[in-house]
Formats: sequence, C-alpha cells, structure tokens
Amino acid sequence: MNNKKPLVLMTDFGLKERFVASMKGVALSVDENIKIYDLTHLIEPFNIWEASNTLAGTIEYWPKGTVFVAVVDPGVGTKRKSVVLKTKTGYYIVSPDNGTLTQVAEEQGIEAIREIDEKINRRKNSEESHTFHGRDVYVYTGARLAAGVITFNEVGKLLKPEVVQLKQKQAEKINDKSIVGKITKVELPFGNIVTNIPKSLFDKLDVKLNKFVNVKIVNDQQTILDKDIKYVSSFGFVQKGMPLLYSDSEQWIGLAVNNGSFAKAYSINSVNNLKIKLTKQ
Amino acid sequence: MNNKKPLVLMTDFGLKERFVASMKGVALSVDENIKIYDLTHLIEPFNIWEASNTLAGTIEYWPKGTVFVAVVDPGVGTKRKSVVLKTKTGYYIVSPDNGTLTQVAEEQGIEAIREIDEKINRRKNSEESHTFHGRDVYVYTGARLAAGVITFNEVGKLLKPEVVQLKQKQAEKINDKSIVGKITKVELPFGNIVTNIPKSLFDKLDVKLNKFVNVKIVNDQQTILDKDIKYVSSFGFVQKGMPLLYSDSEQWIGLAVNNGSFAKAYSINSVNNLKIKLTKQ
Amino acid sequence: MNNKKPLVLMTDFGLKERFVASMKGVALSVDENIKIYDLTHLIEPFNIWEASNTLAGTIEYWPKGTVFVAVVDPGVGTKRKSVVLKTKTGYYIVSPDNGTLTQVAEEQGIEAIREIDEKINRRKNSEESHTFHGRDVYVYTGARLAAGVITFNEVGKLLKPEVVQLKQKQAEKINDKSIVGKITKVELPFGNIVTNIPKSLFDKLDVKLNKFVNVKIVNDQQTILDKDIKYVSSFGFVQKGMPLLYSDSEQWIGLAVNNGSFAKAYSINSVNNLKIKLTKQ
Repeated sequence: MNNKKPLVLMTDFGLKERFVASMKGVALSVDENIKIYDLTHLIEPFNIWEASNTLAGTIEYWPKGTVFVAVVDPGVGTKRKSVVLKTKTGYYIVSPDNGTLTQVAEEQGIEAIREIDEKINRRKNSEESHTFHGRDVYVYTGARLAAGVITFNEVGKLLKPEVVQLKQKQAEKINDKSIVGKITKVELPFGNIVTNIPKSLFDKLDVKLNKFVNVKIVNDQQTILDKDIKYVSSFGFVQKGMPLLYSDSEQWIGLAVNNGSFAKAYSINSVNNLKIKLTKQ
Repeated sequence: MNNKKPLVLMTDFGLKERFVASMKGVALSVDENIKIYDLTHLIEPFNIWEASNTLAGTIEYWPKGTVFVAVVDPGVGTKRKSVVLKTKTGYYIVSPDNGTLTQVAEEQGIEAIREIDEKINRRKNSEESHTFHGRDVYVYTGARLAAGVITFNEVGKLLKPEVVQLKQKQAEKINDKSIVGKITKVELPFGNIVTNIPKSLFDKLDVKLNKFVNVKIVNDQQTILDKDIKYVSSFGFVQKGMPLLYSDSEQWIGLAVNNGSFAKAYSINSVNNLKIKLTKQ
Repeated sequence: MNNKKPLVLMTDFGLKERFVASMKGVALSVDENIKIYDLTHLIEPFNIWEASNTLAGTIEYWPKGTVFVAVVDPGVGTKRKSVVLKTKTGYYIVSPDNGTLTQVAEEQGIEAIREIDEKINRRKNSEESHTFHGRDVYVYTGARLAAGVITFNEVGKLLKPEVVQLKQKQAEKINDKSIVGKITKVELPFGNIVTNIPKSLFDKLDVKLNKFVNVKIVNDQQTILDKDIKYVSSFGFVQKGMPLLYSDSEQWIGLAVNNGSFAKAYSINSVNNLKIKLTKQ
C-alpha cells in the first residue's frame, strides 16, 4: 500500500494549456508514487476570493494530512510570500500568501505557517523562469511534503501565525425577523445563489420548513428581487420551475429553482455588490 | 499491488465548483488507496437521458468489478430510491433510480439491485445536508464497495430486479430500402450526429461501402436535410469538408463531416424531435 | 510500490463525452494498476500544430520513461502510420505520425520509431470500429508499454528515424536591434501572447530588464499594434493593467497584461498570419 499523502491542485490555469500537466509532471518527478487530484483549475483568473472560498468549501472532506497546492497568483515573481500553512485540523496548504488562505485559516485554524525556502524547495534549474511558481516552487514543495521527502519543519523558517486576509463583511440579524447579508456566488452549472448567511444564523429566525420568507435582493441602485419564497430542505419540495430557499451542502443559505436555474430565472448574472435581506413572514 | 476496484464518477456538477472535489475527498477518506477516475462531469444539468446514454457508451471498456457512481439527481432529497445495480456483466452502478440506469440495465443485464441503507451507508454527521447525496450517500457507498469495506450484500435490502425506465422509441426498418429512427445526440467537440439506428439494423439494407444513402432529417414542421451521402468506414474516405454516413465507435449509425462539423455545416443545433430516414439508393 | 510508468493522455476529444473515459477503461483493462494522467483533452479539434506545441511544452517536466498517448487524428481509419516514438531523452509518444511529433522530435531527439503492429497491439474484437483508434490502438498500446506488458521492441517494426513534419518558420535577428518572428498562440485563460522567438535569440539584442522594446504586430493587411512595451521578468513589475514583454515559463518571448489579458486589451483574437517585430529602443 502506498502511504503518500494525497496532493490536491487548485489553480486558475484552465484545462486547455500545458500548465496543469507540467505541475503534475513535476510532482511525479519528485515521487512517481504520489497521488494527485484536481480540486479545480477553473478559478476565475486572478480571483483570490474565489480561490479562498472554493478551497474552504471542500477541505474538510479530505483525509487529514492531505496537501493542497493552491495557485491563484497574480503577483507571481514579486515579493508576496510563498508559504505552507498547517491547519489545526491537520491539513497543509501550499500557496502564495495573498488572501487565498483567508477562509481556511479562519475555519480550520492556524497551527503554524512556514515560508518556503527557495534555496532548498525549488525545482532544480528553474531559476530562469519567473512566471510559473506553481510549477517551479509550489507543486514541487507540495509534492515533497506529500511524499515525505521533507517534513513540515523543512519547508523553511517559521512565520507569525497569521495570513493576508481578504476583507469580509459578515451577515447579521438586524431584528427578530430579519437578516441582512450579501450574495457571494452564482454556483454553476446549476445557477444556484449562495449567500454569506450561515444556517446557524438563519435558524435564529426560527423559520419552519415549508413556510415563506421574504427575499429582497438589491444592488447599489435598485431592487433586483422582492419575493416571498418557500424555505425547504431540498429542491424537490417545490414544484418544477419554482424558486426555493434552502441551506446548501456547506450550510450556507441559498436560493435555487427546482430543475432550473435561479440565476437565469431572475437574471442575476453578477454578484457584485448584491445585498440580500431575508424576512420571516 | 493495490487490489481496490476502480471508482468512476459521472455527474452534472461541472468542473468549476467544489462539488466533484468533495466527492473525491470523501472517497479517499473511506480508503486513501482507492483509485478514482472521472467519466464526465459535464452531463447537461438534470439531463437523465444523457446520463443514461453516456454511461452505457463507456461501461464495457472498463475492467469487470469497476464501481460507477452516477449522479444526475434532480430529485435529490425527495423519495426517489438510492440504489446499487449489479449488472450481469459484473459492473456496479451507484445511482438514484431515476432513469439513469435505463440503457445500462438493458445492455448489460440486471444481476441484482439493492437499495442503499442510509443508516449504514451514509457519511457520518451528514444528516444536516439534504442537497448533496452525491457526496453524502453515493460516493461514500461507492467507495466502500470499491475498497472492499462492504460487500454488495451489505449495501442494503434487495429490490425487484427492475429500474425506472426512460421511454425510448426504437429505430425500425419500414421496407426493403428504408430505416426510420431519430437523432439522439450532437456529439461535441466534433459536431458528429448520432442516431438510434444500430449498425446491425442498418446492415439489413445491405448498403456497400462507398455507396450513397439518401438521408432525410425532419422535425415536426419541416425537412431539415434531404441529401445523398456516402457510406464509408471512416472520415478520411471522403474529401475534407464533405459529409459522410458511418458506423460510430459504439456501432450506432452517425453523420459527420471529414475534418469538420456536420452539426455546423447543416445547422443542426438541437436534437429535439429530429427524425431521420435512411434510404438505400 | 507500483513501478508502472505514468501514462499521459492528450486528445482533442473534449471533456463531455464518453471518449476519454473509454480510453481510460481500456488502459485499466490492460493493467488495473496503471497510473493515468491527463495532459489536456481540449486541443482544438483536428489542430495538429496545437497538439505538437502543447506536447512539446510539457514533456520535459515528466519522469523519464513516461508514455504519452497523443491523439489528434483527423486521418483516423486512413493510411497515416500509427507509431511509437522513443526520444533520445527517454520518453515514449504513441501517436499517429501526422505532424503531432514535429516539435518533440526536434527538441527531444529521435532515439527510434516503431510502427504499431495492429495484429498484436490492437484491442481484441475492435475490428468493427474504424473511427476510434485512440481507444482501440493508441491507448491500448500505450498502456501495454507503460505497464511493461510489451517492450518498445514489441511495438512493431522499426521505421526510419524521421517523422512527418509541420512546416515551421523560425524567428530571426534581422539586424543589431531587431528580431522578426510570428505569434504562435493566445494562451488561455490569461490571454497572454506567445511568439516563436526564444529567449536565447532575444538575449542577442542585449535588452536590459525594465527597458522598453518597440513591439510591432502586423497581419497581411495592416499594423495591429505598434507600441513601446517594457521588458520585465514577471507580470508584477509593471502596474496593474499595463502591458509587458517577458520570457515565459518555456523561455519563449511573450506579451501579457499584469492582472489582465493582452489579447483582450489589444483585440488579438486569432493568431493567423500575425507577424511580430521587436526592436530595441
């Protein structure tokens, strides 16, 4: 049996070009028995918030000890730090410290952070290349860690246990009946809407299943949606084509259409500055 | 050597979000040495027919004992049954019984079907989640089966050996010279047209290679195409840019353009209600 | 530990249909312990140049002995040769000899080429299929080679050590200050422009970092761009939204926009017949 740790790659490199393949080749060149998985390579280019959010939404389902290599790196080749975060829960994330680690650090806790020492943990003869640290530094280091070639201590020097943080406004309960928050994502391919309202906060409104909640969505100028929508446990509890309010599989409150797309049905194409207010009826 | 069975995932979850990665994490949490493969995650959302067809088109090429987890599940969280089908040919398919199993059951035969007992075969502490059985039930059960943690008997109780079936009209030979059928798919990225006419039926017209066949395609209102097209064994036997009739790699009769796209050349964008008639010349 | 060689697949089959999955199933049917990786399946359909270029851009990062199966095969079923190229550097490429091997042969060298003997190295009972040699011949042969079922000598008879070559015009230095070349690719998802000018040639102009270079891009009719652009080592050395000239991670001279898309910013959608001239300022 193979006792290497899983190595999981997340990037904004897309699936068409040589980039991801080169990273996998480097990992296998460290150890041919390493086990490589893709988280996604379709993070919107340079979208660090999306990287942070996507990583945080899956990490807990992986075995303890899994090594994630997260490369959304608009500052490649400049002086942002290259780090490995070890979470209190036992995961490793290899990444530029540019905000990608925001949600994972908050939700999984920081056990320790080390800066990658490129004198040791950089692919041999890659000094000429300044634009692909995903290949030359991050996956190389991640593979060495996952394969047991180096220990966490050998990554490089210990840093203060803090990460560069993206600013996030929290949802809040503003009175007995209402919560205000924001829309964080249109989740494809289904077109579900995700909010920053955790189920645990929504539960404080004490809305029973199959009761209606008024949903108001506004942008800076106008009201996009003002509609009473049924709160249910899953899609099939409203008729096909009907909207629903639910707690998604990460326990965020979301909006969907049964057998359809909420985003398409209500013309929500971008999530920029969309605020949401839920009011118990 | 690793004697786990391959675990093959097919969903309509797309490649961008956390969904597929979370399923893989769950599978590895069952057994880190499990071997996971992707069939596709680009089934059109909620398109059960496409799921049935895609699964049936590849299953026979996999080793006996392979466990497929097929999740196109518009009824998630409602009362459709969650099952494991064992085929007469030795494959396992873990899926909602919603029509996804139609073609596999017909072509590979039903050895037995068991209903997943969620008291045993459900991810621990997933009761709060009602919308992601792909992660919480199906891949968890599939991974346990592929890893040998449970046997097929331990999936749950035996059901009657029948599956929910999508209605399918068969192609038929209507006289000595003609077959009528329907178009089942525009196959991307090449833009080839697939029909429901098996080569074995077409062979009854006794059309020789390099002879012409009249191809008529109609929708409810009008004739889309009426053209004599050469029957050849592969694309390169007509000139570049020319159409051809052929038997595809699953032995369905199809239409293509050599080095081009039949769908684009003849403006066939949707397959809804497209009927086809082939007449020997 | 598993001592099979990695098997790496590159095709123009896309990610939606059964094609790639069937190839993987065939490989596992040869040996369930084989390790399969995807290079990409998003080569533009029938684009042999892109196949050649993408393969050449990643091969060196993989362990020696890796077996690549490269199937962009517009001539499937006709008389192009099916071969295995062993490079001087120790890699194997299984492919139709249709130009796909052009750049790999040039850069890695030809140790030997053998023609696949389909009497031995073809999937059993696949004679009825004439349109999917990726499944029936190439991945079957590649898997047998990677798993050690056959040696390179058992692929088939030795051919002359030469491959079908795509014509390529080289970039050239036309005087002390200028190089002319062509644009070879718009690299997605970032929209970077890649040229056929190697860094080693550009270095002969002796342009210092952070100095400007005049970049002129022309097509057959007109000048698309005529602009002085800063030469830097990575994206972050110009301000966000500003263009830059750099040496990419394969050491080709390229153009990018920091945190943006050069292709979008300067409306370069197609690379057809785009010539580029760089002049030291």
